Amino acid sequence: MFDGLLRDLPGPSAAAAEEARARQALLTKPPGSLGRLEDAAVWLAGWQKRGRPRLDTVHALVFAGNHGVCVHGISPFPPSVTAQMVANFEAGGAAISQLTRVYGAALDVTALDLDRPTADFTAAPAMSEAECLAAIARGVDAVPETADLLLLGEMGIGNTTVAAALCCALFGGSPASWVGPGTGLDDAGMARKADVVAAGVALHGGHLDDPFEILRRLGGREQAALVGAILAARRRGIPVVLDGFVCCAAAAVVAKLVAGGLDHCLAGHRSAEPAHGRLLDALGLTPLLDLGMRLGEGSGAAMALGVLRGAVACHADMSTFAEAGIDGRSAGDDRTNAEAGP
Amino acid sequence: MFDGLLRDLPGPSAAAAEEARARQALLTKPPGSLGRLEDAAVWLAGWQKRGRPRLDTVHALVFAGNHGVCVHGISPFPPSVTAQMVANFEAGGAAISQLTRVYGAALDVTALDLDRPTADFTAAPAMSEAECLAAIARGVDAVPETADLLLLGEMGIGNTTVAAALCCALFGGSPASWVGPGTGLDDAGMARKADVVAAGVALHGGHLDDPFEILRRLGGREQAALVGAILAARRRGIPVVLDGFVCCAAAAVVAKLVAGGLDHCLAGHRSAEPAHGRLLDALGLTPLLDLGMRLGEGSGAAMALGVLRGAVACHADMSTFAEAGIDGRSAGDDRTNAEAGP
Repeated sequence: MFDGLLRDLPGPSAAAAEEARARQALLTKPPGSLGRLEDAAVWLAGWQKRGRPRLDTVHALVFAGNHGVCVHGISPFPPSVTAQMVANFEAGGAAISQLTRVYGAALDVTALDLDRPTADFTAAPAMSEAECLAAIARGVDAVPETADLLLLGEMGIGNTTVAAALCCALFGGSPASWVGPGTGLDDAGMARKADVVAAGVALHGGHLDDPFEILRRLGGREQAALVGAILAARRRGIPVVLDGFVCCAAAAVVAKLVAGGLDHCLAGHRSAEPAHGRLLDALGLTPLLDLGMRLGEGSGAAMALGVLRGAVACHADMSTFAEAGIDGRSAGDDRTNAEAGP
Repeated sequence: MFDGLLRDLPGPSAAAAEEARARQALLTKPPGSLGRLEDAAVWLAGWQKRGRPRLDTVHALVFAGNHGVCVHGISPFPPSVTAQMVANFEAGGAAISQLTRVYGAALDVTALDLDRPTADFTAAPAMSEAECLAAIARGVDAVPETADLLLLGEMGIGNTTVAAALCCALFGGSPASWVGPGTGLDDAGMARKADVVAAGVALHGGHLDDPFEILRRLGGREQAALVGAILAARRRGIPVVLDGFVCCAAAAVVAKLVAGGLDHCLAGHRSAEPAHGRLLDALGLTPLLDLGMRLGEGSGAAMALGVLRGAVACHADMSTFAEAGIDGRSAGDDRTNAEAGP
């Protein structure tokens, strides 16, 4: 199953992207003046394989899991909160509930065996191979056959520790350099968290040349599901908006598994969790937003959807210079003076 | 008229802001984890004088003017484009037309004597005192009696040169340091533009200790109208989102006229026009967005409205920990373990 997911990943439509780029040059604005809105429209066009991208069907997929590593006191919140927050998502009371409503996305929550946490990775692999593959398959299954865009998010008490361990194993660097306050650890808590990451990476040190083994040994079910969802979206031609640190740590497994594996993914925002900026740099991703958020749940991805709605509306519905009867550049100008464009 | 606008500017409601801050602490998320969304909700609450801010009535006010300084070839586009773009706004074909539709704002365009450009400021004051006051009054009149939020924007071929001149006169620094490509000048064009700014500042050098004189001599009608609109909004208790470089250059006149005069204003975005970052720093404003946009028209302010809609929805409709029955921090945690909050 897993090898099949990775093989021969499809690319975007260069023709659709070029059609979108050409249209941007005709719209009533100086070329490039909508900045990242223009880039986003062209990116969406390429992956949606249509010159005028749409955002009619957008799904936010949020995966939740629990983590054995919580026994080490690496979160201020107890693991019971994971299931309680899933109920809150479903009842419409969470941030992601509001943001998906405001920006127009369906919210699909997948709770992954919350009553069966992964093993404590400082003592054993977090998941068996079968468990990891099953969680990946849940991610694959959560992706709709067709959609204009997916937003990805996660929930899991303790999972910034898991994300730090994944990053440390995937990219190297000191455990402390990947550790942050998460939901609100103090300095002593962060030191404990770094020790836990160090212990996990040390225990599994002989198996860290294979990204799948890193995911299985140090990751959690929601990270595995995110890997599955990212790859399934690629196979189905659906562009993806990534969320914060934990989501991007799962995405990093994909990047290490297959070159260009995240080409269909946009980084929605830069989290305030300190290691996220470093992780985005390592992945070569430039986030769309930087709002000091650090909530997870797909909340940053949903904020990015808000921006993309503006980008798509400008691309689809602005007039061209010719349509609006607007003069091009002055004849005296030293650049091109095209009749139908600036 | 003008002195009356400046006298005894009202402040926000500290009680409403505190009510909003207290509510943020109860919502189902780690404290502070929504970052600038939380700050924005509290800021809106204070200026709207209600603990749960609303965005039911939002107006985008776009002011357009023409500039005598265009005779020096400081824009790639001819001044005829100003009126053509106003028609495009009204016909629904411009970027701001799409963005106000998507994010839910009424678009009110005020064209200011477009067939009567200001004087060339390298030869004379751009406006007489009466002309400047009349343009300020147009800005005042454009502000509705009540609204939940105003977005401000402008259009005017040549007006990044005007903005650079205003900034140079208000804050000092070399003319070149305030000059950028605008709608697309090349290096030679930018050098010409810096010379024009230098000539204007030199001609009016004896009158630059009074911000009103700076506005009258170097500004344009749309900048004067923006000054009027910012002050009228303050008097009517309406919070404001500023747009890019040109809008903020007008706002800078207000900041120099009266201390705290921009306290009710949020910087919507950082423009790609290079001097805008410097201007925001000088004004002590941290922009909400940085999307590489440089269009004006209120487009960046409208993008910020999109973000604010998410902020207000989370503030209004998220459940509290108590409502959702979610556990607080672990008993073993070294911080407060409040029953109804993290």
